Amino acid sequence: MNELNVIKIGGKLIDDPAAIGSFLADFTALSSPKILIHGGGNLATKMAQDLHVPVQQIDGRRITDDATLDIITMAYAGKINKNLVARLQSLGCDALGLTGADGDSIRSKIRAKKPIDFGHVGDPETVNTNFIQSLLDQGITPVFCAITHDGAGQLLNTNADTVAADVCSAFAKAYTTKLYFCFEKPGVLTDISDDTSVIEHITQSEYENLKSNGTIADGMLPKMQNSYRALSNGVSSVHIGLPSMITQSTVKHTTLTL
Amino acid sequence: MNELNVIKIGGKLIDDPAAIGSFLADFTALSSPKILIHGGGNLATKMAQDLHVPVQQIDGRRITDDATLDIITMAYAGKINKNLVARLQSLGCDALGLTGADGDSIRSKIRAKKPIDFGHVGDPETVNTNFIQSLLDQGITPVFCAITHDGAGQLLNTNADTVAADVCSAFAKAYTTKLYFCFEKPGVLTDISDDTSVIEHITQSEYENLKSNGTIADGMLPKMQNSYRALSNGVSSVHIGLPSMITQSTVKHTTLTL
Repeated sequence: MNELNVIKIGGKLIDDPAAIGSFLADFTALSSPKILIHGGGNLATKMAQDLHVPVQQIDGRRITDDATLDIITMAYAGKINKNLVARLQSLGCDALGLTGADGDSIRSKIRAKKPIDFGHVGDPETVNTNFIQSLLDQGITPVFCAITHDGAGQLLNTNADTVAADVCSAFAKAYTTKLYFCFEKPGVLTDISDDTSVIEHITQSEYENLKSNGTIADGMLPKMQNSYRALSNGVSSVHIGLPSMITQSTVKHTTLTL
Repeated sequence: MNELNVIKIGGKLIDDPAAIGSFLADFTALSSPKILIHGGGNLATKMAQDLHVPVQQIDGRRITDDATLDIITMAYAGKINKNLVARLQSLGCDALGLTGADGDSIRSKIRAKKPIDFGHVGDPETVNTNFIQSLLDQGITPVFCAITHDGAGQLLNTNADTVAADVCSAFAKAYTTKLYFCFEKPGVLTDISDDTSVIEHITQSEYENLKSNGTIADGMLPKMQNSYRALSNGVSSVHIGLPSMITQSTVKHTTLTL
């Protein structure tokens, strides 16, 4: 089977122009079919401050109200997505920017209102592989921001790691799929303050132990859960680390397998 | 030949939620292949005020500096485009939102810096009909905002009427093409204050007379110039009037032919 690379880039990377330029060159250099999923960085938070839109939180978790969804749509689907697409085009990568509403590519279900009503937040239910495949067949590279829709006219804020895992899973039957989570750390670390403490390989049972003994915690947990869900859906391997890992096989990073 | 309808909706229409809802239902009801091009409405101006981005003008004409381009990209390619796409999807129209950078669909040349440097403003040079045709062949409806790119990584603010005229012209050999400019007036009027004074048909020579004697002036002139340019490029007919004209043949409006 042909290989498909699904690559997610996180927030802090997007806020760093030099790092993003280097990443986009590496991404373009990948010869196999590929899909990019990007987070939002600090732009939405900064815009909310500038526009005096208060951040609504319940139990410390952020709520996507109407004004927040507008800001996210402007920042992620507008400024960030379209500038990434224009830069990729300049590098010779025929990119196409998408939300889940475009071509009905990712349809989500709004998150249950209880115990917490998160507002316009949804979790993917359907990935339109026919449409996305038609793009790949034309040599076009889809670039997704993490906004989806409910099919009833409502855009929904969606976790970018989940979008990446679900898009990659949807192609697991058609391709040998590799899922990459690129961020500012060289992988999953045993000591968060020591970048040399990368765990190079973690199986699902090892992950359960690392979670139980507290080695893996906080923000890394949802990423790991998305990863093992993708692997159980047929994704070949998941890679977590610095962006340079996507083209340089010698760059130390964390590989997850079942 | 099959018919292709290219429909441009203007700013004031976009700012009117009831009117836009009615338009989108009419647009979806069109059974032939179709392309939507939308302007920006007041959102970008309001955002610039809220974000304290000064409007730069030279000789009374607006300049698209870096901050203004960011706002336009957020407002047009983000909020307006993606909400139109989500609403069309809910009506059963498989819409896909685009800037000219997406799929390299419209490549523009930055406008000459003299006599006035308008900043990041460009005029279309190439329409990627292969890519757009591949969407139409899949039953997908392209929805363009009026932002294009230069192929070197720079997004460019582009006149929406020009985008509509150029996209329509590009398909004049493959389809019987009709170009519609929908706005808040029932057509080209002999008396701007009298909505019953619609001129129902204007040939190019009649237009030259109406321009010479001052009947047609100001903002209508670029729209008319774009229209006759499209007609000379092979577009079958151009229609100017209220949005309801696109589905109701009895709605009085202005038809332009060579």
